[in-house]
Amino acid sequence: MGSDSDLDVMKDAEKILKKFNIPVETTIVSAHRTPERMYDFAKSAKDRGVEVIIAGAGGAAHLPGMVASLTSLPVIGVPIKTQSLLGLDSLLSIVQMPKGIPVATVAIGNAENAGLLAVRMLASRDPELYDRAIKYQDDLRDMVLEKAERLENIGWEEYLK
Amino acid sequence: MGSDSDLDVMKDAEKILKKFNIPVETTIVSAHRTPERMYDFAKSAKDRGVEVIIAGAGGAAHLPGMVASLTSLPVIGVPIKTQSLLGLDSLLSIVQMPKGIPVATVAIGNAENAGLLAVRMLASRDPELYDRAIKYQDDLRDMVLEKAERLENIGWEEYLK
Amino acid sequence: MGSDSDLDVMKDAEKILKKFNIPVETTIVSAHRTPERMYDFAKSAKDRGVEVIIAGAGGAAHLPGMVASLTSLPVIGVPIKTQSLLGLDSLLSIVQMPKGIPVATVAIGNAENAGLLAVRMLASRDPELYDRAIKYQDDLRDMVLEKAERLENIGWEEYLK
Amino acid sequence: MGSDSDLDVMKDAEKILKKFNIPVETTIVSAHRTPERMYDFAKSAKDRGVEVIIAGAGGAAHLPGMVASLTSLPVIGVPIKTQSLLGLDSLLSIVQMPKGIPVATVAIGNAENAGLLAVRMLASRDPELYDRAIKYQDDLRDMVLEKAERLENIGWEEYLK
Amino acid sequence: MGSDSDLDVMKDAEKILKKFNIPVETTIVSAHRTPERMYDFAKSAKDRGVEVIIAGAGGAAHLPGMVASLTSLPVIGVPIKTQSLLGLDSLLSIVQMPKGIPVATVAIGNAENAGLLAVRMLASRDPELYDRAIKYQDDLRDMVLEKAERLENIGWEEYLK
Amino acid sequence: MGSDSDLDVMKDAEKILKKFNIPVETTIVSAHRTPERMYDFAKSAKDRGVEVIIAGAGGAAHLPGMVASLTSLPVIGVPIKTQSLLGLDSLLSIVQMPKGIPVATVAIGNAENAGLLAVRMLASRDPELYDRAIKYQDDLRDMVLEKAERLENIGWEEYLK
Amino acid sequence: MGSDSDLDVMKDAEKILKKFNIPVETTIVSAHRTPERMYDFAKSAKDRGVEVIIAGAGGAAHLPGMVASLTSLPVIGVPIKTQSLLGLDSLLSIVQMPKGIPVATVAIGNAENAGLLAVRMLASRDPELYDRAIKYQDDLRDMVLEKAERLENIGWEEYLK
Amino acid sequence: MGSDSDLDVMKDAEKILKKFNIPVETTIVSAHRTPERMYDFAKSAKDRGVEVIIAGAGGAAHLPGMVASLTSLPVIGVPIKTQSLLGLDSLLSIVQMPKGIPVATVAIGNAENAGLLAVRMLASRDPELYDRAIKYQDDLRDMVLEKAERLENIGWEEYLK
Repeated sequence: MGSDSDLDVMKDAEKILKKFNIPVETTIVSAHRTPERMYDFAKSAKDRGVEVIIAGAGGAAHLPGMVASLTSLPVIGVPIKTQSLLGLDSLLSIVQMPKGIPVATVAIGNAENAGLLAVRMLASRDPELYDRAIKYQDDLRDMVLEKAERLENIGWEEYLK
Repeated sequence: MGSDSDLDVMKDAEKILKKFNIPVETTIVSAHRTPERMYDFAKSAKDRGVEVIIAGAGGAAHLPGMVASLTSLPVIGVPIKTQSLLGLDSLLSIVQMPKGIPVATVAIGNAENAGLLAVRMLASRDPELYDRAIKYQDDLRDMVLEKAERLENIGWEEYLK
Repeated sequence: MGSDSDLDVMKDAEKILKKFNIPVETTIVSAHRTPERMYDFAKSAKDRGVEVIIAGAGGAAHLPGMVASLTSLPVIGVPIKTQSLLGLDSLLSIVQMPKGIPVATVAIGNAENAGLLAVRMLASRDPELYDRAIKYQDDLRDMVLEKAERLENIGWEEYLK
Repeated sequence: MGSDSDLDVMKDAEKILKKFNIPVETTIVSAHRTPERMYDFAKSAKDRGVEVIIAGAGGAAHLPGMVASLTSLPVIGVPIKTQSLLGLDSLLSIVQMPKGIPVATVAIGNAENAGLLAVRMLASRDPELYDRAIKYQDDLRDMVLEKAERLENIGWEEYLK
Repeated sequence: MGSDSDLDVMKDAEKILKKFNIPVETTIVSAHRTPERMYDFAKSAKDRGVEVIIAGAGGAAHLPGMVASLTSLPVIGVPIKTQSLLGLDSLLSIVQMPKGIPVATVAIGNAENAGLLAVRMLASRDPELYDRAIKYQDDLRDMVLEKAERLENIGWEEYLK
Repeated sequence: MGSDSDLDVMKDAEKILKKFNIPVETTIVSAHRTPERMYDFAKSAKDRGVEVIIAGAGGAAHLPGMVASLTSLPVIGVPIKTQSLLGLDSLLSIVQMPKGIPVATVAIGNAENAGLLAVRMLASRDPELYDRAIKYQDDLRDMVLEKAERLENIGWEEYLK
Repeated sequence: MGSDSDLDVMKDAEKILKKFNIPVETTIVSAHRTPERMYDFAKSAKDRGVEVIIAGAGGAAHLPGMVASLTSLPVIGVPIKTQSLLGLDSLLSIVQMPKGIPVATVAIGNAENAGLLAVRMLASRDPELYDRAIKYQDDLRDMVLEKAERLENIGWEEYLK
Repeated sequence: MGSDSDLDVMKDAEKILKKFNIPVETTIVSAHRTPERMYDFAKSAKDRGVEVIIAGAGGAAHLPGMVASLTSLPVIGVPIKTQSLLGLDSLLSIVQMPKGIPVATVAIGNAENAGLLAVRMLASRDPELYDRAIKYQDDLRDMVLEKAERLENIGWEEYLK
């Protein structure tokens, strides 16, 4: 992530990856304040064994796109919500990449989905992980089914209490 | 893709994948007009050997998100530019997914990057493909370097002719 | 509705329908987390005697449009306000449906109007219900008239106390 | 509709209704230029036997909301695309109605969906019409299936010719 | 104004008009809930001696435009800030009027300026009132000059205490 | 107006004023290129007998607001459509004035309404002009009624030819 | 700055300039409330020895652009965040200047960057100041490196405490 | 600039600088396609004698911000208009820089102003250049005055021919 102020959002990505027992390296790399570090980080990622990179940044968010230009690994971008423009600036700065350098962008502030997207990428060729990803979706479904059943049984007045 | 009117954009994804010799299946699946087909398509994709799905759609673009909810494969979404809102509607309909179901969104109308993102996902664990992805980026770089050299040599008046 | 977090907004629709003695079935159906349930729910609605469906969802809100693609009943969509983009994403995801599959969209967060729109649809061929709908509008009018009279009599300083 | 310049868009609603053999009355009623006519039109609609009203308007589009405030019939609003703000102004002017007076809003410029939404409302209690609405959706599906088959058979290069 | 919830904003217009000793009539007229009242109010305004009308409304704000269509008096529109879209919907619903029916729109939530605009309209042919309008602007200027002097003298640390 | 490139839009204001036999002074005053001229123009307007000022400008449109700060005459602002942001920039630059200095803003590119708003301001205390303003609105109404009658008689197919 | 309500934001510019020992003159100049003062201020700036002007304003923010039209010194504009439109209005009012009169615009509410931009302008021909600007960037970098190291050492759970 | 497709816009900056006899180096440096070249270019700029850098880019425009993070020279950013989002994406990607790294942003597509801003920066400590900058503004003023005189003399009908 680009700043420790993004940590409160970005920790959700690490949580997901840990839940799937995927080794994860969490650190701060600022495109604007530590451009050399970003270069070294991105250039060496493949050789360090990294398979997917998740980068979150806000405002004129250049980290995901710059990392993607410095490696051929898949890069997932998380637009961080901003005070003034609510994250629309972050979203457009990350998703509107020119031809040649893609960034896999997820919803504003949705680091959890960044983690899950990384899981899907890795699971695509890893049957055991794929089964766990399927199970994760099944669990989400069951949670909704339970809530639906409860709501149908007790009505919304009771449910909202 | 959701409609044959998207083909002119989406063909760029197929072109890229073919350039990398990645087998590709191109068809029309409309979330709204052929919902059952979409279900079957998404549900059976993994078993048919599909490793990444690219889905393009415009306006209230539900195809990428719905496909992502019906499989655990990585799904890449391409927001198609629209006549009225220029693709802002497509972008938000695709990228703003709720927690649990990620869609890897690329820039409005940028199917080429969807193809390249698929290549990166597959290359992450395929050294030979990774080398070709690196080469692709190197070629882009060289093309820019050539243009830069030419511009520096002849000046913009000559260059623009 | 797509999530129990929408209940606080969507309960207003149920309230209105109950005020008009219209039988109502309230439950949670998530387009993304329970896609099969959504299929079954939408496909069987007509046969279960449902005449109008109200669907609320936020962000990349696919529930109303997907339900509309799985039935020929009228579907009313309620865009739920979101934290980052204030519901503009929900609105565009719901209202910008392609040709062939309409969703009757109401204002962001305005589930009460979704209920009233359902009443109007049903009242169109039900004279007794139509009279009650007219009366509801008359009551709104009288409430405003009373407030106007009060404001004219006491002035705004007193009124605001 | 509010102006004869909207006719080129709004005619699609009439086309759909005629395809379903639903009697339709097409005229111009401007909220701003003929406010009295609008009052008379909306107030008398129910007694003239009208069951659903479709109103299209652009810019500061007040026609659908004002008609909805003058009748208890369901009113469908079609935001017309504008030159400057592309129809975002029309959309917000129509959809963001206050509590009490709903307008069933469809996509910018999508009068066809306004017609189809009217069909759905009427079909809800008319089994024969419902069957035809279902058939219409089936035909859309089949059209997509045909295109999909053709695309799969001949490839996009041939298809785009 | 269209609702008593707008009173907290709209009272600033009355305050300004009273400061200039301009007789003012403050009431609630809802375009959507009391359309007949709006008609009567607007149609009779000229004969009641009204010279300028100020109308505030939020969301799909139709009051200013509809009043302007029912009279030839100048109508000033105040877009009220909304919860979801921050008043962008109110602004576009009020300002984007079609050719033929103008509304003099002021900033979102700025009822004070609506009052001052009414003063300017009336002062245009009333030399005594014009002088007082000039004086009002001079007082604003002097207030800023005083603050500027104070800031220059004590510095911002002291000033902000 | 701020530039002769705005003339094609702004001429509609002069046309309207001439139709109402209101003397009009049309010239170019650029807030940014001729700030001194703008000062002189605005400062001397009242003494030159000007009663209403219409100012059109595009992009970071400062002319209407600056003129309003230099006189106490009513100032009408016309946001000119821009190539990049379609006039949204012009609209916000003109309408969002701070407390104390109002600008009567009309729709993007709608100089005709600026002319009509000026007519309404002047007509407010000029019975003969007011009658002509009423007649203008009646003529607009009659034009719509004629079109409506024609459309009802011949149907849209014939009408659109 | 245009108002003392902007002081809480704009003080960050003064802080930066003081940190670099650059003499600074902080005052309030309102384009709309003190237009003459603005003229005098801008016209005399060069002769008073001013080398760079920083101007902050919100809403229909005309101060930076007007100052830039009255001097040939570089002018830096700071868009102040607004309550209704979050500063989008301020940003567009400042940045979208017509050809001929540039304003160097920084991010919404980012007066610190306005100060740093002024430093860069002055440092461009002042080697000693340039070295201090470089050092400032190095310090920012080192701060991020420290945080990154800490985060890597203790993990995010500990870090967030 | 980031791509030779931006040349048609960016050439206006070079034109202005040449008009002022300021030596200029025009080349293509892509943040995403030639990141190393960008590093070398930005890092060595100061030593090559560069005093101001102008960088134009479109979409997720990272070039200006990244260059600014790699040097302490002033960097001027030109947002290039894009097909889909009209340059709003470019503008936000360039202007919304985080604290510490400023980019002096000009209007969308306005490379001429980027050139003029560079002139102002250099002129700030160069009296002879400052005089020429003043003269440039005077010439702009005189051009407007001539047009104004012509328009006043011949009227708009003649002027528009």
